[in-house]
Amino acid sequence: MAVMTARRAIVRMPVGAEPARTPDDLVVESPLVLGLAGEAIATLMRTPGHDLELAAGWLVVESGVRRADDIVTLRACREDDTDRVHITLRDGVRPPRPRAFVTSAACGVCSADVLDLNPLRSAKPHSAGWTVPREVLAALPDAMRARQRTFDRTGGVHAAALADGTGELLVVREDVGRHNAVDKVVGKALQDGALPATDHLLVVSGRVSFEIVQKAVAAGVAGIVAVSAPSDLAVDLAREYDLLLAGMVRDGRLNVYAGAELVS
Amino acid sequence: MAVMTARRAIVRMPVGAEPARTPDDLVVESPLVLGLAGEAIATLMRTPGHDLELAAGWLVVESGVRRADDIVTLRACREDDTDRVHITLRDGVRPPRPRAFVTSAACGVCSADVLDLNPLRSAKPHSAGWTVPREVLAALPDAMRARQRTFDRTGGVHAAALADGTGELLVVREDVGRHNAVDKVVGKALQDGALPATDHLLVVSGRVSFEIVQKAVAAGVAGIVAVSAPSDLAVDLAREYDLLLAGMVRDGRLNVYAGAELVS
Repeated sequence: MAVMTARRAIVRMPVGAEPARTPDDLVVESPLVLGLAGEAIATLMRTPGHDLELAAGWLVVESGVRRADDIVTLRACREDDTDRVHITLRDGVRPPRPRAFVTSAACGVCSADVLDLNPLRSAKPHSAGWTVPREVLAALPDAMRARQRTFDRTGGVHAAALADGTGELLVVREDVGRHNAVDKVVGKALQDGALPATDHLLVVSGRVSFEIVQKAVAAGVAGIVAVSAPSDLAVDLAREYDLLLAGMVRDGRLNVYAGAELVS
Repeated sequence: MAVMTARRAIVRMPVGAEPARTPDDLVVESPLVLGLAGEAIATLMRTPGHDLELAAGWLVVESGVRRADDIVTLRACREDDTDRVHITLRDGVRPPRPRAFVTSAACGVCSADVLDLNPLRSAKPHSAGWTVPREVLAALPDAMRARQRTFDRTGGVHAAALADGTGELLVVREDVGRHNAVDKVVGKALQDGALPATDHLLVVSGRVSFEIVQKAVAAGVAGIVAVSAPSDLAVDLAREYDLLLAGMVRDGRLNVYAGAELVS
């Protein structure tokens, strides 16, 4: 049975109560590399468990597989500290198109490639002595929500925002894709000459996965404030890259998963 | 100002009340093709608006862009009925790696490629005369939720399920990625020889975007039942491919966006 949750020590900081250090269960997010004919064809950031089903289902869309025997073998293994599924397709089945994170045909994809955010980093995320009040963090999601005009009409759209350490929102953007909403915010900051966004916070309406931390590191923000929960990988990377990571910020709740020393 | 919402006629079927046909505003989802040196390098399924910021922010992560003048020009246009942004990078800036939906270097990507699901279809999604009771649809999200063991522990994970027309859940899977959860369900059905999943329903814990409909068509299900709202594109494709699409199925609410004639 695959391990789908992981425990981390976090700090609960509900509004109006003492902060409390406590263990918390997070969903596991880790890379699964799909290989075909000896080459890596895709890296899926997934929760472990049912990896062969995941590979098979992925092939239904990506490779037009329709019957179980279109797939000759699916072999799971762990190589170079990375989970992999090696695929053999029946002759005549169209191979999948290249997908996200595929590098060159000659170059394998390993988790180290995926998880090394150092090339994205260009500056320290916060100045010496920079902190942000707990009340500012707690108020950010509602402040962003108040400026979500498309959400008001549809109830089905994500948002992202860039805020400074006093809680002022510098830009709010909405998109059907949560990663797009973040890209729009980061792109606006780039165009305004505001990158790296040292001492600023990225606010997101949903959960925090690997790719959100990746974008936060690239933008150089000091931290991430999210309405929902992060994955274990998001927490580990936020700690490694010295980011504040606050999540489940709603209904008076506020969990700090990384960088609690930055909260005043 | 870009149009971020689109209106569609839907049928509201709240539990215990008469169905009511009504207009509803949906978030727009449509392809934006990014081009570099005359070649399409990525297709982003996004909500229109701030497209140049989206392209710029995408380049911050994908191309290591850090200063506004790393990008020489971003030029938005509409060609072949598709929104495009043509990118020119400063000499020395690393070009982005190939990404999702990129075909070959010689082949452009156009919205027709993205939106044509015909190659994925292998059977009619439902038998003649097949219908599903409104009460079955309304109960599916809670039934799935009751089997989400990882959600119970973490509060931050997506789920998908396959159900038959009586509401029986055949398989439930969880994942940090909502598309992965669907792939696991479809892969399980493939391995069980249950594809195409005619007269069955795909249940998802989140919103319904283009890619969820794409997977539903490939799996051959009769419909999709979602806890949250669909995009306009998801609704249009569900109608085109004769799928039932129910959304906002929570708290006694139930909206039918497509295939209302399949609800008894």
